[in-house]
Amino acid sequence: MTTTLPAGLTATSVVAASSANLGPGFDSLGLALSLYDEIAVETTESGLAVEVHGEGAGQVPLDSTHLVVRAIQHGLRAVGSTVAGLKVCCRNKIPHSRGLGSSAAAVVGGLAAVNGLASQAGLKPMTEVELIQRASEFEGHPDNAAAAVLGGGVVSWTSTGPTGPRYAAAPLRIHPDIHLFPAIPEQRSLTAETRVLLPRSVSHGDARFNVSRAALLVVALTERPDLLMDATEDVLHQPHRAIAMRASAEYMQLLRRYGIAAVLSGAGPAVIGLSTSPELPEEALEYGAANGFTIGEMTVGHGVRWSQGNPVRS
Amino acid sequence: MTTTLPAGLTATSVVAASSANLGPGFDSLGLALSLYDEIAVETTESGLAVEVHGEGAGQVPLDSTHLVVRAIQHGLRAVGSTVAGLKVCCRNKIPHSRGLGSSAAAVVGGLAAVNGLASQAGLKPMTEVELIQRASEFEGHPDNAAAAVLGGGVVSWTSTGPTGPRYAAAPLRIHPDIHLFPAIPEQRSLTAETRVLLPRSVSHGDARFNVSRAALLVVALTERPDLLMDATEDVLHQPHRAIAMRASAEYMQLLRRYGIAAVLSGAGPAVIGLSTSPELPEEALEYGAANGFTIGEMTVGHGVRWSQGNPVRS
Repeated sequence: MTTTLPAGLTATSVVAASSANLGPGFDSLGLALSLYDEIAVETTESGLAVEVHGEGAGQVPLDSTHLVVRAIQHGLRAVGSTVAGLKVCCRNKIPHSRGLGSSAAAVVGGLAAVNGLASQAGLKPMTEVELIQRASEFEGHPDNAAAAVLGGGVVSWTSTGPTGPRYAAAPLRIHPDIHLFPAIPEQRSLTAETRVLLPRSVSHGDARFNVSRAALLVVALTERPDLLMDATEDVLHQPHRAIAMRASAEYMQLLRRYGIAAVLSGAGPAVIGLSTSPELPEEALEYGAANGFTIGEMTVGHGVRWSQGNPVRS
Repeated sequence: MTTTLPAGLTATSVVAASSANLGPGFDSLGLALSLYDEIAVETTESGLAVEVHGEGAGQVPLDSTHLVVRAIQHGLRAVGSTVAGLKVCCRNKIPHSRGLGSSAAAVVGGLAAVNGLASQAGLKPMTEVELIQRASEFEGHPDNAAAAVLGGGVVSWTSTGPTGPRYAAAPLRIHPDIHLFPAIPEQRSLTAETRVLLPRSVSHGDARFNVSRAALLVVALTERPDLLMDATEDVLHQPHRAIAMRASAEYMQLLRRYGIAAVLSGAGPAVIGLSTSPELPEEALEYGAANGFTIGEMTVGHGVRWSQGNPVRS
């Protein structure tokens, strides 16, 4: 049975950026970052109105193909509802096509906003487990999706379910001594393009290498930040992507020479440095700035939040 | 400078069995088991006398090629000492050639016994870090060696050092709800033989599969035993070894159907079941017994212990 939501309901969601594919943890280890998109939705009598402020404004479509709108429609079906019309307002801070999980944030944020609407109509909101499953189905990166849903760090994994892939994730409590330094280049990238650079097969030794480092990275992120350098070594994806993003690869190597455990964020080209030091060395900051990187400090992001009844500001 | 230890010094070490290659954690995740070998050594005026009681008695050589003796000689060189003669007595409980880390235990136990001797001569004993490095150099399985040195669970990893491989490990505190059920078959195996069954290359997807499961297994072992079934899935080694050890592979599958997270111990053929239940199902016990497995319950083993001055009982 499908419930048509009445016009005039409003809801808001706030959802974090994320770094997936962390070091050796390709398709598995993700980390939410303290950089948030905000999505406000309102049910209307008819039609669709989409506004985008901030990142992506003037670039993304403002019709039913808009990713947030598609996620909302997906979410409405999931909770057994529909709407006559919709107003959506996105206030985006997460840069697009840099490997910072903007797509996963759009999908998770859209689904969470549906929770805000649905709960006002007496419908059961989607659980965290459902949000991870549906967002991953929709967007394909469970490590980004799970980080956006749960916040903090995550280990995500995929198994074969009766009707298709089953996505799941376990949270990691990131050690409070770890400081995060994202370095975001002007250059954009599309994951779909960069993923084809990966080899179809790897040596058994390389697979073992990443297995040991991914296990170690869980230990390093949660209990032993002193092991971050060894734990972020990777031979499965970063070396293969380097050709497509030389500046990022070189900056990553420079940071690592300074003892900052730098990795590509997602499929890049953003780089994220993990360090127990509260500051980057001056030379590393200067090199980054001179090579087109915007370098900031972030903390670990919180999980997606949704609330009912906030009006859509425009 | 080499110090010749005087005759009449005695020392003892106690060292645990271990399960390495845990599930997805090939060459990386290890677990010490509460089954111990005891090694007693005494410096003498000349010659070499070796006694072996229990496992391996009548099968292992009693000369300078005995693994414990070789490890002791290696350890003596490491601490800068030598002996005129040596008496060694091994009381072994760890079955040989089953994948329970008896070789790593022999090497770690031998090195630790040297610590007991050397400290009486004012020489600096080897640290845990050195014991892991030297035992792994000697025996080649850092996940067994580190589990034997540190006890509990370990993540071990190997990197390239200036003079050869550098072995290191981080300890894992195993969740107290996890019960360990080793199933030890009569059939023996030699790691060197079984390792050749592994493919030289694997698909990138299979590598990613094990990466996610190895990261998850660290979480499951330490905080989320409810995730042990998913976390012990593996496509890198167990399926390839199955051909060489059908009975173990079948028993492992049977235990998994009962919800026991069973994996091969090391390179097999022993199987170890991890479970939050304090007992195995009756049917699983009966099947195991009927198929030649000795099934016990063990707890997590402690790290190697050494002491000075205990006489060699014979």
